[in-house]
Amino acid sequence: MDFNDYIRDIQDFPQQGIVFKDITPLLQDKETLKKASEALFLLVGEHRIDKVVGMESRGFFFGPMLATKLNAGFVPVRKSGKLPAAKISQSYNLEYGTDILEIHEDSIQKGENVLIHDDVLATGGTAKAVCQLIERLGGNIIACNFLIELDFLSGRNNLNGYEVQSLLHY
Amino acid sequence: MDFNDYIRDIQDFPQQGIVFKDITPLLQDKETLKKASEALFLLVGEHRIDKVVGMESRGFFFGPMLATKLNAGFVPVRKSGKLPAAKISQSYNLEYGTDILEIHEDSIQKGENVLIHDDVLATGGTAKAVCQLIERLGGNIIACNFLIELDFLSGRNNLNGYEVQSLLHY
Repeated sequence: MDFNDYIRDIQDFPQQGIVFKDITPLLQDKETLKKASEALFLLVGEHRIDKVVGMESRGFFFGPMLATKLNAGFVPVRKSGKLPAAKISQSYNLEYGTDILEIHEDSIQKGENVLIHDDVLATGGTAKAVCQLIERLGGNIIACNFLIELDFLSGRNNLNGYEVQSLLHY
Repeated sequence: MDFNDYIRDIQDFPQQGIVFKDITPLLQDKETLKKASEALFLLVGEHRIDKVVGMESRGFFFGPMLATKLNAGFVPVRKSGKLPAAKISQSYNLEYGTDILEIHEDSIQKGENVLIHDDVLATGGTAKAVCQLIERLGGNIIACNFLIELDFLSGRNNLNGYEVQSLLHY
């Protein structure tokens, strides 16, 4: 099985000039769904992980499953206003303007080992903001784990000093 | 272990007068995360399931994990404009106004057995719209599966004729 056969290119989504990597064919096939979650788990290696942090909302597809395989808890990072309890915020740059990500204050204890997971590493702006949130809570980032890395956007340059694990490269 | 100890009430969220059931304490505890996903799986019983359909975005926490346990694929239902490929839409009523949900046209084949999953059954408006989307694609709805059912909102009256499975009741 080649995972690439289950990722489809969508031209001009979400805006003109962007080629979007649609992972829904991979999710809706029972065999690739299972094998992709296992492959993401194997990428992590021998590290002890206390919390998996996943980004809204496509980081939620594999994040909780990775957490249970790693015997860890799952923590969602969400966009502004979505998390209901006491939280901290981090702004980050988009191509035009800025956006805000939030995490619950009680979600990570000082010294806990954290794995970050998202579906796609593009420019790395989101993942970098998530690293900042986790470190402000005292978490120890073990690695950033992605289903897809868009190599031509050099997102891992934004994640200097962190281990970056990606299942598929484009 | 009592799952209820890991669900917290947030007063006046997302708006005045609403008591929000926050499931993040359950997600971030490794033991309850694992046990809740197993308990949701056991609720399904002996049915053969081809696809689990989860609603954006809290239905994504357990939906894909349930799918792998059931040996099924996972299909996201999303809000308007989020899905990139050919799709169908369904509008549904909110307390004030209407909203739109979408599903990819190729996500369910005629005659496939479908389990719907979301974190909370409240008034049932969202779940009812998802049932309509699935039936328009020719899917056969086996059950609607929820982590939490807010009994006082009588959401299951909106799901007449469907099996409703809920792990926790309030």
